Amino acid sequence: MRAVIPFKKNNAKSRLKTLLSEKEREGLAMAMLNDVTEALLFSGCFSVVDILSTAVVEVNGANLVLTEKGLNEALNEYLQKMSDHSMNEPVLIIMADIPLVSKKNIRDIVNTSSDLVIVPGRMGGTNALFIREPSSFHVDYYGASFLKHVDIAAKNVLNVLVFDSFNLSTDIDEVADLAEVLLHGKGHALRYLKNLGFGIMENNGRIGVKRGTS
Amino acid sequence: MRAVIPFKKNNAKSRLKTLLSEKEREGLAMAMLNDVTEALLFSGCFSVVDILSTAVVEVNGANLVLTEKGLNEALNEYLQKMSDHSMNEPVLIIMADIPLVSKKNIRDIVNTSSDLVIVPGRMGGTNALFIREPSSFHVDYYGASFLKHVDIAAKNVLNVLVFDSFNLSTDIDEVADLAEVLLHGKGHALRYLKNLGFGIMENNGRIGVKRGTS
Repeated sequence: MRAVIPFKKNNAKSRLKTLLSEKEREGLAMAMLNDVTEALLFSGCFSVVDILSTAVVEVNGANLVLTEKGLNEALNEYLQKMSDHSMNEPVLIIMADIPLVSKKNIRDIVNTSSDLVIVPGRMGGTNALFIREPSSFHVDYYGASFLKHVDIAAKNVLNVLVFDSFNLSTDIDEVADLAEVLLHGKGHALRYLKNLGFGIMENNGRIGVKRGTS
Repeated sequence: MRAVIPFKKNNAKSRLKTLLSEKEREGLAMAMLNDVTEALLFSGCFSVVDILSTAVVEVNGANLVLTEKGLNEALNEYLQKMSDHSMNEPVLIIMADIPLVSKKNIRDIVNTSSDLVIVPGRMGGTNALFIREPSSFHVDYYGASFLKHVDIAAKNVLNVLVFDSFNLSTDIDEVADLAEVLLHGKGHALRYLKNLGFGIMENNGRIGVKRGTS
């Protein structure tokens, strides 16, 4: 069983520009990538964890697979290569920006029996896909990818499980999302944000994030 | 085993004002209340389902418990009464605005063995609490209630399980949240929004909601 994490380092997390410098956004992206990789490795479920990246990154325990392609093309080429090389073993595709994921989450996903497990992100996204037979599926990210993946599965007559997880639904894109890391995080991303001076603030019963002592 | 749903009908869901009239917001709140009540009833886990409300509402299968108090005071009085009347049986407190909840979610929560199960909402909220001994706990909603409930549990030496669910984390407060109902809903709230003409729209890869054919 394999896992693959697509990763984009350059100009990562541009919607966090208001609070984080480019270097800090890259640092946060790397911290989240480490959280996801550790959840995969500590789950003990995979013989190989690949990071499919447009730039060189080093993460303990994971292989680097360089690509110049966009997300969909790179992943579909990855699935195609698995099929071509008769490595039609199950594969988990998981996003790099979901630092709340736990090894239990990973085990629960791969211990299901469906042909395809779709893990929704918020607002129609897909944060993980567990594909039992790589030759039976292709990905179509961006927009309402959740609906597109449900459609592709139906066309390929795959039975689908929608996996219900707050941890996995929580991708970190916007400033408000940082609050979720501060509230529920346990790993690298939490420590990274704390070291930068981030904390939770409350204003009229609403939660937000603040930086430093201001 | 009991369940209680606090409910506010008047001026419900005020953050949806831009897209829904007051009557429609009340209608949506009632549809969501019906979704939550059905998940509880269909789970088969409860001898009593109470709706703790400031106004008269009728929901099949549930008892109405009227109160004039605010959320925290009303719920703590409810817990206190259970203790006073030697009804120290487990109780599930669950919010009325999480229409994605399933009967499986409910069964999974009550089948845990912890003293307290906390189900986080987004941005520090608490969308459900399963309290094994009502006399051992009190609630403190608003703001980062998740952290407050973890603290109260620690002070009362309760062991805590944080229950990981996207369905249960998704409370419907803002316009963007309606997309989650349209994407993942199955029940009353989905049908209510569809009957009002709501649908998903995609703009530059981002998902939103639209009303009517515009």
